Amino acid sequence: MKFEIMRQRLLDGLNDVMKAVSSKTTVPILTGIKLEVTEEGLKLTGSDSDITIQKFIKAEENGNQVIRIIEEGAIVVQARMFNEIIRKLPTSDVEIEVKENQHTHIRSGKSKFHLIGLEASNYPLLPEIQDDRQFIVPANSLKSIVRETVFAVSTSENRPVLTGVLWQIKGGELTCVATDSHRLARRKLTLEQPIEGEYNVVIPGKSLNELSKIIGDSSQPVYIAITNQQVLFKTEDVLLYSRLLEGNYPDTSRLIPTEFKTSITMNGKALFQAIDRASLLAREERNNIVRLASLEGNTVEISSNSPEIGEVEEEIQSTLIEGEGIALSFSAKYMMDALRALDGQDIMIQFTGAMRPFILHSANDDIVLQLIVPVRTY
Amino acid sequence: MKFEIMRQRLLDGLNDVMKAVSSKTTVPILTGIKLEVTEEGLKLTGSDSDITIQKFIKAEENGNQVIRIIEEGAIVVQARMFNEIIRKLPTSDVEIEVKENQHTHIRSGKSKFHLIGLEASNYPLLPEIQDDRQFIVPANSLKSIVRETVFAVSTSENRPVLTGVLWQIKGGELTCVATDSHRLARRKLTLEQPIEGEYNVVIPGKSLNELSKIIGDSSQPVYIAITNQQVLFKTEDVLLYSRLLEGNYPDTSRLIPTEFKTSITMNGKALFQAIDRASLLAREERNNIVRLASLEGNTVEISSNSPEIGEVEEEIQSTLIEGEGIALSFSAKYMMDALRALDGQDIMIQFTGAMRPFILHSANDDIVLQLIVPVRTY
Repeated sequence: MKFEIMRQRLLDGLNDVMKAVSSKTTVPILTGIKLEVTEEGLKLTGSDSDITIQKFIKAEENGNQVIRIIEEGAIVVQARMFNEIIRKLPTSDVEIEVKENQHTHIRSGKSKFHLIGLEASNYPLLPEIQDDRQFIVPANSLKSIVRETVFAVSTSENRPVLTGVLWQIKGGELTCVATDSHRLARRKLTLEQPIEGEYNVVIPGKSLNELSKIIGDSSQPVYIAITNQQVLFKTEDVLLYSRLLEGNYPDTSRLIPTEFKTSITMNGKALFQAIDRASLLAREERNNIVRLASLEGNTVEISSNSPEIGEVEEEIQSTLIEGEGIALSFSAKYMMDALRALDGQDIMIQFTGAMRPFILHSANDDIVLQLIVPVRTY
Repeated sequence: MKFEIMRQRLLDGLNDVMKAVSSKTTVPILTGIKLEVTEEGLKLTGSDSDITIQKFIKAEENGNQVIRIIEEGAIVVQARMFNEIIRKLPTSDVEIEVKENQHTHIRSGKSKFHLIGLEASNYPLLPEIQDDRQFIVPANSLKSIVRETVFAVSTSENRPVLTGVLWQIKGGELTCVATDSHRLARRKLTLEQPIEGEYNVVIPGKSLNELSKIIGDSSQPVYIAITNQQVLFKTEDVLLYSRLLEGNYPDTSRLIPTEFKTSITMNGKALFQAIDRASLLAREERNNIVRLASLEGNTVEISSNSPEIGEVEEEIQSTLIEGEGIALSFSAKYMMDALRALDGQDIMIQFTGAMRPFILHSANDDIVLQLIVPVRTY
């Protein structure tokens, strides 16, 4: 194997595949990155066996030569070291050559590195996924879905299935649900091209976070293919494979109230900032609980107190309070996470009583719905 | 006590004094910041008993009212909490009022905080330092001195005196020396106004680092006053007091060689980058040792190898190699620290043999001198 490549292009590719490489793997070869050179270009693969990311760098792009291929071949090199070396090389081009016994030579200007690589044929094969049942979500929508749901997954391994996000596809609609049993986030999306059949899969939160980092902000299509044990996300030059979580995801549909006693419409950003301030005192006592109460004249009061340190209260003008008065307490962190997912827009909060779960969504629709279980404080 | 202040000015002041506040203090009141309001303005004080920082915010500046003083007084408030609250308040002005029993009210827009403060008279008094023997160093020179020496102090508490920088003032010259016994950094400065007498004090490295953060990059004067146990750095609006380290600083003058067998003149930045690359492999084995050798034709070779992983070598063109050939090994970290202090300029490295300390300085002068003890590798 021997080729020359524009250093920046190699770095960009490594930046993507490194996201799948873990230093904590139990499979030694997975601390490496696989490089495969064919006449079409260079394929980079990184994996921690849960997630695999593959990036393809074309030899020629828009008539410019990105890679000069001298000899085809494949090698596995230690990922972190290789990435660091490429990052620090002195010139804008790199030559990589594999000689006998996986001896890998890296040259750039007057700098010469010689690494001992690993046999590429020992690198695990990728799962085979048939793409006859794939569906499409634009990259920017996919990023929104991840941002609006993943934060609500459980961080505890007690119920592993709750560390993932449930993706339900049915009748041309995708519904994503995440919950840690104290709060829940739900996002709906109408697919541009409905697919046949029904899917119910749970994708690890970590995989979705990594996915979000490697796909762009554009509306370019991401092709998604699901099998029993794997999901594949595919863009023009990147593939991300993730294993799915096993186990039955709880039925959350009955948790979400549909009748309400109080509805408050207000600016999400103003509420976020008031809770952020109130939580300064709440945080000290490690419970991080703040209180919300409706007052006369469409006013909402946010307050918190911590006997040792002091207290805080703040009034916010809401647009409208409908129904009964309400006063309840909740986790400032959960509320701020939910408001962040709703992105500062005008929101509606709907309550069915001080001790029942309440929901938040945009004042205009419930495409993004957040649910929080309040906290008993007496 | 009652006053209104421009929030950003209060934040800037807190930003400085917070650098002296430690959460690990054994004196509870030192987790607080002292606020003192007089008709001239607001004085903020933070301290961890080793370092004390005091900032004065004038009530009026260039004809603009920064503080509106309603009632003079003083209070101590919990530093971290107070800083966080001020940072997150909704409007550009803050009103602070202390009522009976140190109850402190903070108001901004519709946000009201109520903190329980501490009696200001219980806050430790500042040491008294007579300023009849002060000398002046411009702020930007002071920052250079710190940057060029402090990194070389010892991080081990085995010999506490080595965790500080020796400041020697004699005959109108300031000489600063730091060493951890494996390397040494020395910086000389001619004082603009010589002072009488001789001083030999050891200033904790940590104090100098904090000082460097709070003084500007301008050439404004910093007034420095030294007593037996304290040093005071004073700018127009900030005071930094630091305790001095006790104990005798070793005599390092004889460590620095004055006769040399080999001198290499070369670009410091090129050498830094080559060592940075070579150390990628060296770092893996945790010794971080690289090798330098002079070759024919004014060429310098930097190399490193790590049997398990691979090897690296790189040739750099030097300007001039004078004297005998040289080949030796040293800590990549120490060499990079020293080169960073010399700031990428053309440098001269002078050797007296492969196992003797060598020195580095600018090709033009030795105002900044770095010494490194090589490592035996056989």
